[in-house]
Amino acid sequence: MGASMPPTPDFTILKTGHVELRVTDLERACAFYDGLLGFVETERDDDRVYLRCLEDWEHHSLILTRADAPGLGHIAYRVASERDLDALHRLATERGLPTRWVEPGEERGQGRALRIQDPLGFPVEFYHAVERVPRMLQRFHEYRGPHVMRVDHVNLQVPDVDAGTSWYRDTLGFYCSEYTETEDTPPRLWAVWLHRKQNVHDVALMTGPGPRLHHVGFWLPESSNVLRAADILSAAGYEASIERGPGRHGISNAMFLYLRDPDGNRVELYTCDYLIADPDFEPIRWRLNDPKRQTYWGHPAPPSWFNDASHVATFDGDGYMPIQAPAMADRPSYVGH
Amino acid sequence: MGASMPPTPDFTILKTGHVELRVTDLERACAFYDGLLGFVETERDDDRVYLRCLEDWEHHSLILTRADAPGLGHIAYRVASERDLDALHRLATERGLPTRWVEPGEERGQGRALRIQDPLGFPVEFYHAVERVPRMLQRFHEYRGPHVMRVDHVNLQVPDVDAGTSWYRDTLGFYCSEYTETEDTPPRLWAVWLHRKQNVHDVALMTGPGPRLHHVGFWLPESSNVLRAADILSAAGYEASIERGPGRHGISNAMFLYLRDPDGNRVELYTCDYLIADPDFEPIRWRLNDPKRQTYWGHPAPPSWFNDASHVATFDGDGYMPIQAPAMADRPSYVGH
Amino acid sequence: MGASMPPTPDFTILKTGHVELRVTDLERACAFYDGLLGFVETERDDDRVYLRCLEDWEHHSLILTRADAPGLGHIAYRVASERDLDALHRLATERGLPTRWVEPGEERGQGRALRIQDPLGFPVEFYHAVERVPRMLQRFHEYRGPHVMRVDHVNLQVPDVDAGTSWYRDTLGFYCSEYTETEDTPPRLWAVWLHRKQNVHDVALMTGPGPRLHHVGFWLPESSNVLRAADILSAAGYEASIERGPGRHGISNAMFLYLRDPDGNRVELYTCDYLIADPDFEPIRWRLNDPKRQTYWGHPAPPSWFNDASHVATFDGDGYMPIQAPAMADRPSYVGH
Amino acid sequence: MGASMPPTPDFTILKTGHVELRVTDLERACAFYDGLLGFVETERDDDRVYLRCLEDWEHHSLILTRADAPGLGHIAYRVASERDLDALHRLATERGLPTRWVEPGEERGQGRALRIQDPLGFPVEFYHAVERVPRMLQRFHEYRGPHVMRVDHVNLQVPDVDAGTSWYRDTLGFYCSEYTETEDTPPRLWAVWLHRKQNVHDVALMTGPGPRLHHVGFWLPESSNVLRAADILSAAGYEASIERGPGRHGISNAMFLYLRDPDGNRVELYTCDYLIADPDFEPIRWRLNDPKRQTYWGHPAPPSWFNDASHVATFDGDGYMPIQAPAMADRPSYVGH
Repeated sequence: MGASMPPTPDFTILKTGHVELRVTDLERACAFYDGLLGFVETERDDDRVYLRCLEDWEHHSLILTRADAPGLGHIAYRVASERDLDALHRLATERGLPTRWVEPGEERGQGRALRIQDPLGFPVEFYHAVERVPRMLQRFHEYRGPHVMRVDHVNLQVPDVDAGTSWYRDTLGFYCSEYTETEDTPPRLWAVWLHRKQNVHDVALMTGPGPRLHHVGFWLPESSNVLRAADILSAAGYEASIERGPGRHGISNAMFLYLRDPDGNRVELYTCDYLIADPDFEPIRWRLNDPKRQTYWGHPAPPSWFNDASHVATFDGDGYMPIQAPAMADRPSYVGH
Repeated sequence: MGASMPPTPDFTILKTGHVELRVTDLERACAFYDGLLGFVETERDDDRVYLRCLEDWEHHSLILTRADAPGLGHIAYRVASERDLDALHRLATERGLPTRWVEPGEERGQGRALRIQDPLGFPVEFYHAVERVPRMLQRFHEYRGPHVMRVDHVNLQVPDVDAGTSWYRDTLGFYCSEYTETEDTPPRLWAVWLHRKQNVHDVALMTGPGPRLHHVGFWLPESSNVLRAADILSAAGYEASIERGPGRHGISNAMFLYLRDPDGNRVELYTCDYLIADPDFEPIRWRLNDPKRQTYWGHPAPPSWFNDASHVATFDGDGYMPIQAPAMADRPSYVGH
Repeated sequence: MGASMPPTPDFTILKTGHVELRVTDLERACAFYDGLLGFVETERDDDRVYLRCLEDWEHHSLILTRADAPGLGHIAYRVASERDLDALHRLATERGLPTRWVEPGEERGQGRALRIQDPLGFPVEFYHAVERVPRMLQRFHEYRGPHVMRVDHVNLQVPDVDAGTSWYRDTLGFYCSEYTETEDTPPRLWAVWLHRKQNVHDVALMTGPGPRLHHVGFWLPESSNVLRAADILSAAGYEASIERGPGRHGISNAMFLYLRDPDGNRVELYTCDYLIADPDFEPIRWRLNDPKRQTYWGHPAPPSWFNDASHVATFDGDGYMPIQAPAMADRPSYVGH
Repeated sequence: MGASMPPTPDFTILKTGHVELRVTDLERACAFYDGLLGFVETERDDDRVYLRCLEDWEHHSLILTRADAPGLGHIAYRVASERDLDALHRLATERGLPTRWVEPGEERGQGRALRIQDPLGFPVEFYHAVERVPRMLQRFHEYRGPHVMRVDHVNLQVPDVDAGTSWYRDTLGFYCSEYTETEDTPPRLWAVWLHRKQNVHDVALMTGPGPRLHHVGFWLPESSNVLRAADILSAAGYEASIERGPGRHGISNAMFLYLRDPDGNRVELYTCDYLIADPDFEPIRWRLNDPKRQTYWGHPAPPSWFNDASHVATFDGDGYMPIQAPAMADRPSYVGH
């Protein structure tokens, strides 16, 4: 994959802004995210808790929504202006994608927003106007948990990464930082890491049964915070929530810890990746079966890491999207089923 | 200072790309930057050593140039394309600023570049084409020193911060992250932190006798690396090179260590600031005499930190720019002279 | 000072066990030690709060006692057995030192203990029997503050370090790890670091007006915890409590942060010194004016660090010991008054 | 297991002093220990390389010896005086254990030493006199690798932990810090952590086919050094040497990384355990199948960690000790074979 710059769209996506996770027990989920991981509750209503991280100035970066079954409610990307919403609305309409306007305040602390069902099958929200809240950044005496600073990215399991890349890179203007190819001749694209903000990713697409949300990544300040997260969770009796890590990724260079929340939704605590300030950064290629790709130290991920992922709400929110199998292997050859 | 977005210029500056420091003893300077701080030598010729950091994919981010007197050779900003160089050339010419084209290879590893003398009096280079070299990022076994990852910013002492801000923000399109005002009524702008890449700054402007280069900031991965830098320098007999810190800035939230190289040029080792992915990030205001502004833990900077700075080469490179005094105090009231 | 082993006394002192500090406002002191530094309250009565650290299995390692004036209540060393108390009682009586038995429970959570006024003028307690309480060590989810693990040492300002060394080393059987000599010919002993447990010190003696308690040192797990302590205190508005550091000592190699509690009693947060498992460890000599002695990075301590120290309760507890000036300089020549 | 103090023997063992590992390719082993892990070579002869760690003042703490097959050459404990060697010689003779005196200089940098074959079948050396060499502790600019500070402990696989505990605790005077019992009724002793120096262990005994050396533990300053070790090894192409971790032990509370040297000998990098300054510290009990016992975060150790261990030289050094199977399971029920 070359470093060719994407065509410039007539809108500007800034970053992954927040994610809505569905949980079956709101208090149990709050005990995990707020009580143990130290997210800060900004506001709540009957069915939703709006949480933010320590570096956030936006009203929320994680929404927990009470539901009958766990899963992804929606992913939200922030855009640079209100006009960008209209441009995206035109684009979605032209493509025949389902759309609807979210009224100001329908999601607490947020202005007008556009919801679409994207070509990959995910419910995606674009928003600009958002309520500013005090940053906790220098309220060090109020830090709790492993110091979750901000949402970093979403990782999406999809049956067709080529199609997903086309949408994100060629249409939405995301840049590619790293990618994985199969061992075939010629190799096929297996996964891709794409960014708008200037680090390794805002969104990763990974071959697998989908559409599913593989995980939401949150950013920690330092590698010691990753260790601290594991200590806190185990001490509180949540050792079964630690699915993988701590470890270092080959891809992205990040230190990571993968957790499963009480509903099984997967969260990555993530830090120590790198800056990409140049749109012509040359994407880094990895082979699927390189043992250092997933964990630089050579440890394989457990099968559950490939098997399990969160189902994705339908656009009307009443159900979950059907799962389609990928046309190629969903994991390295050295990982079992 | 509001969060109003700057006008969009017809060129795109990406980041602070490299800095050229003049040193009187090239080997002595290499012993400091390469031998102790672990910069990696990419190439050298008779009078210049081209160094890069561990995360760099560009040919160099620091040039050491042999000279009769220490000082700043030039500051370089990378732009998004060759066309941006032409647009900047037009701008500089319209403004009546001295300009010249640097031929490909005149600076090793670099294509065509534009040099101008900016309205603040600094020799500034804009470049796009640059030789790609292997990143050291995952060559962990070859890391040396405190793990300097990349150039982060320059800090410039100028007599008129308002004028400098106008150039950088209103003309070049930098965004303001934080700023300092005097205690006057109404308050006057005393310093400003401006960025193109998505962290707190690529350039800071600070009231003082100028034009002078106050320091070049390089980025470390974690706060423990800042402590390690101090240990290494002291152990090697360079404790007198440690001017200030380790400490945490109120401004930028960064952990820092200020060093003086063997010629007295000042280097900041810097980490743990924050991401600014939103152009409408609301700039943070500080009062000049707030004791937590400079060092969040309340420690004053030593007078030398305000008194000393590197002289700036004239545009023809034959001498150094004359120094002009500022119209207001160059330091907080609690710092002596 | 040679590595000669001290004569073996007929008792065994194990370690510095706890310290009693007098404070004028018990709630204000608790807000500092418990609320910000994360000490754990084991028990309290009307005039005393018994605190412990995260690694402690003993009932307390810090006692805060309500008093009209701040100062040191007593220092306590744990001994290996009840018989050791009797041996120490015989020793003190032979030396004509004031003694009294503390009844079981008179100090909460503690059995019979011996109080003496030592030859240096300090109220010292020896104890063996103590109530065991649950360790917090692996209750990581309940850690607060910068993670204070245990009491490490006391530092005592005395006018005659030779006499103090004779008592601690030659009579009580402490081992010397490091020491400081003046620049005189021949050099004179200026300070000494003495230990029973196997790290650099349980007690340090430093030339100065005394008897005074210079500080109590508490142990943190890692250097990042020292930085975290400074962040927490400043964020909570206690930046004026940060007197010195963070820094690394030349002596002891430890990372440190010196704090003043709300009554002015000085606390050191301390980590990263070294193990001394050998009684014939050769003590390390430092010159008083070596700039790397106090702070390895070359920074001088502020004058207050030499000027201020806690007064020491008289043996009957009704007043404070008179202060005697030392016969030699109380600080390096490069530190002002 | 109660906290009852062991009978006081008429000798004093101070600590685990050094270990001799046999390797089949001396240069390959040096490339691992010196080149990657940063051990410092003190001296070498034709068949041996004497290495030390950064905090060491003794001539060596690790000996690599050229041999036809890998394995343990000997374990060495330092004693407090020459007289202790004679007392230990008497003890060994009374017990009918094989003994021999090692002449001064036969092992470089060491005085007279006593070798015995202990009742567990291990070749054990006791020594007191040793050459002092400069500590690297504050030569921070010469630190390499993950900063290995000192030898911490040996872990021995033996078929009968009860018998081994009797020798170490009841005869040699080691203290128990932690222990593991089976799930039987009544529970049986499965493993024990024993110390002379004041941290969790100098030696651990673990049920398994033996006598075998399970691993040698070396101490790192901070948990970040453990991560750094993994990064260095993987970057250098030694990812297959990383057998287990990084992780935190439930037992000992330490952060760990288990490595296999190029001959398969196992090394643990270890830090963040705790101080035990009190001989009446109450030993901590663990159940064999508690998932947090081995790795506090709940991850099982790989089967190889239980299957593989280093053979132990016979007392004459000409061969390796026969292996005897244990009478009970050699691993938790949740770890496969």
